[in-house]
Amino acid sequence: MKKIVFVRHGRSEWNASNQFTGWVDVALDDQGIEEAHEAGRKLKEAGIEFDLAFTSVLKRAIKTCHIVLEDSDQLWVPEIKTWRLNERHYGALQGLNKQETADEYGAEQVQLWRRSYDTLPPMLDPDDPHSALNDRRYAHLQKRVIPMGENLETTLARVIPFWEDHIAPAVLDDKTVLVAAHGNSLRALAKYIEEISDEDIMELEIPTGQPLVYELDDDLEVIQKYYL
Amino acid sequence: MKKIVFVRHGRSEWNASNQFTGWVDVALDDQGIEEAHEAGRKLKEAGIEFDLAFTSVLKRAIKTCHIVLEDSDQLWVPEIKTWRLNERHYGALQGLNKQETADEYGAEQVQLWRRSYDTLPPMLDPDDPHSALNDRRYAHLQKRVIPMGENLETTLARVIPFWEDHIAPAVLDDKTVLVAAHGNSLRALAKYIEEISDEDIMELEIPTGQPLVYELDDDLEVIQKYYL
Repeated sequence: MKKIVFVRHGRSEWNASNQFTGWVDVALDDQGIEEAHEAGRKLKEAGIEFDLAFTSVLKRAIKTCHIVLEDSDQLWVPEIKTWRLNERHYGALQGLNKQETADEYGAEQVQLWRRSYDTLPPMLDPDDPHSALNDRRYAHLQKRVIPMGENLETTLARVIPFWEDHIAPAVLDDKTVLVAAHGNSLRALAKYIEEISDEDIMELEIPTGQPLVYELDDDLEVIQKYYL
Repeated sequence: MKKIVFVRHGRSEWNASNQFTGWVDVALDDQGIEEAHEAGRKLKEAGIEFDLAFTSVLKRAIKTCHIVLEDSDQLWVPEIKTWRLNERHYGALQGLNKQETADEYGAEQVQLWRRSYDTLPPMLDPDDPHSALNDRRYAHLQKRVIPMGENLETTLARVIPFWEDHIAPAVLDDKTVLVAAHGNSLRALAKYIEEISDEDIMELEIPTGQPLVYELDDDLEVIQKYYL
């Protein structure tokens, strides 16, 4: 039986201030750090031994990955960081306060941006200081690959190639894999693994700090799914 | 001009209790964690931007690597962990108190084990609970590759192939590289890079928590070497 575990990072400094985060590299706050320790404790208690860990290039996911591995006494496990596991890019909404955005654009529009599968947010200006074009961690990418705003559909389109080429082959090779990432990149993976419809996926909310375990068969069909 | 930075991890829980450590996976103590923060602060002040980080599979080096990258705000930098950067394996001395060992074997013999380039320590019993044969992080290695005790000469023999195949190619490709590792694996690299003799190398003591910067030319000859 093959196994993959998702850990969604906990509260960040911008959750506290109710701002849209996306690709902005905001740190975990104290509660988020505690949530990562909680996940680490649960994994240690469950005795899950990882062979490989994947995370994004955003510090709130990476730090979660490190805490989880350290607390379950397997900090030596190889770890691969990739932009493809980044949070959904929230476009021009990044940095805005969610309440102020609702006041300006209306609650319904904001709800659509947040909960619709295929509605794009307003695109970020490529010259914006928050634009990933100005960030050397993406310097190896062709400019047109770098998003200025994503919905879950386009997030999934950049997450899944990484699943196909890196995560799935490791799981098929009987590696027990940790993916420490974000609400929407994990939702994209869950949608693909569980074959959830475009309509139903937006209802799926993976809780933070609670490891989600998938037990999979030889063709990566789900046998069992549970939270620790 | 090409650049590589060494950071030697700081004090571990067994430094405090004066025990031989080697491949035993002992954690940093509070002072060791503070030394890593100090190294991170210095690297941030110096504005050094890494493209790639290498560390061992021992938590005291990995944790140092993570703290250094986090404090210099580049936690996203790709990190490769390898057994080849592990500390020198101290054989059957691992876990023994240094003073008690001196009392038993004599100060001169212990000094020889600690300071001679080519004197091997007493070998660890392969069935010892501390034997790396029982540790799944080395399960991908052929058994005869796994040391039961090393001197600096044999440490260097397993460190340098990793330099040749992974670190040096990255530096030649103009990547600025961090190596967060141990007293003797860094000493082995320094010996190779600086072409230090077997006699002189044992005098080289890389201080903990102080980043050592090498500026190298196109064939990786040393232009300049300094501590931050």
